[in-house]
Amino acid sequence: MADIIEGRNPVIEALKSGRPINKILVSRNISSHHTIAAILSMAKEGGIPVEYVDEHVIKRHSLTGASQGIIAYAATREYLSLDDLISISREKNKPALYCILDGIEDPHNLGAILRTADAAGFHGVIVRSRRAVGLTAAVAKASAGAVEYVPVARVANISQAIEILKKNGIWVVGIDMAGEMDYGKVDFTPPTAIAIGGEGKGLSELVRKRCDLVAFIPMKGKITSLNASVAAAVVMYEALRQRSKQRLLL
Amino acid sequence: MADIIEGRNPVIEALKSGRPINKILVSRNISSHHTIAAILSMAKEGGIPVEYVDEHVIKRHSLTGASQGIIAYAATREYLSLDDLISISREKNKPALYCILDGIEDPHNLGAILRTADAAGFHGVIVRSRRAVGLTAAVAKASAGAVEYVPVARVANISQAIEILKKNGIWVVGIDMAGEMDYGKVDFTPPTAIAIGGEGKGLSELVRKRCDLVAFIPMKGKITSLNASVAAAVVMYEALRQRSKQRLLL
Repeated sequence: MADIIEGRNPVIEALKSGRPINKILVSRNISSHHTIAAILSMAKEGGIPVEYVDEHVIKRHSLTGASQGIIAYAATREYLSLDDLISISREKNKPALYCILDGIEDPHNLGAILRTADAAGFHGVIVRSRRAVGLTAAVAKASAGAVEYVPVARVANISQAIEILKKNGIWVVGIDMAGEMDYGKVDFTPPTAIAIGGEGKGLSELVRKRCDLVAFIPMKGKITSLNASVAAAVVMYEALRQRSKQRLLL
Repeated sequence: MADIIEGRNPVIEALKSGRPINKILVSRNISSHHTIAAILSMAKEGGIPVEYVDEHVIKRHSLTGASQGIIAYAATREYLSLDDLISISREKNKPALYCILDGIEDPHNLGAILRTADAAGFHGVIVRSRRAVGLTAAVAKASAGAVEYVPVARVANISQAIEILKKNGIWVVGIDMAGEMDYGKVDFTPPTAIAIGGEGKGLSELVRKRCDLVAFIPMKGKITSLNASVAAAVVMYEALRQRSKQRLLL
């Protein structure tokens, strides 16, 4: 969804996913590297123009500083509407499983969460449009390409989105240090959306009130919160563990 | 263990942990902020000198660019030896629980892993001295202060460290995408060390061979690996879940 995709793996994932790429820039110095060679062969097959340029040109165009000598320019992908996300998810014939992000601001965290959402078999991620990081090049890079695969719906208002999810029979579980139940005791097998708060702030009061249940992750040490992408991953994998046990996911 | 501690929470955690602080620099602009006021009061109690400086002085001294207007200079903390770590852990009278890091290079990942290790009740983390990030200011910041609490042993050779752990009756479980068993089926209740590989590389061949067992984290999507700190967290919290169930940890 970023216009600029940087780094070998993100570019490969973009090509594999069939996302329309307008152009690829590659540094002359590394065009014989085996991953780059694979990219160039895929680009040739797909009829995508490749420009060989000096390393400093790549550096000038790079937004993340971690281009690894390759940048692809992709057609802009749109966010989904919440309705579209719910429809796509219905076609899977599995109980819905979403992650709602209530204001993640760090691109590394959003990237890691998208990567985990793909890995844990989540149907999509719901983000808010204001005071939150968008699907930037840095996010795409941190997601290791998962941004290409995980459906992302953007909504103006998370509380309203929760109401819509509930009307569609989806159970909404907030995660917050001040929750009422250990996340390991929550049943994640019905259609569920897990709501994660922003870095350092947790869930906003309005969002917390709309959740069907707020669960906590036990903390046995002296630090009082986990990194946001770590908290999301711990809960997402618990959901996957429960569903795998019940053969709800292959 | 970093000489320079930056940011409000890391400085508070350093003060709370009783770590010797030589001096605190604080920006004049924000000295009335409530967290800063708490820090200043703790510093006064501890007889720690505080210097009020202009914001640009803080910026010049900051290594992370995320000082939030406050920097503390701490006495350098040493890494533990593996023997010391094992002794400290024995005093807890609980089955040992360690995380071995086979070459984590990103300070955000190391910081997040230390934070998770504290939260999940781990007894310590074992890192290698070469081709791995040290306990830098950026790590301390990303750890949200956990670097002050989690014992860290540094070893020259991870394979040899694994042999020593085994001789001490500790079961070593490697985590790698090419593992032989789902991590959720591994028994983490005996004394255990979990070995996590570096970003993008996974476990080195030598380390993998020394493990008693190599487990994988199931991946249901198109991406083939998780972020290193996310993978560590998923397994660390599964260990905590199993031990809590058996009342091995409070």
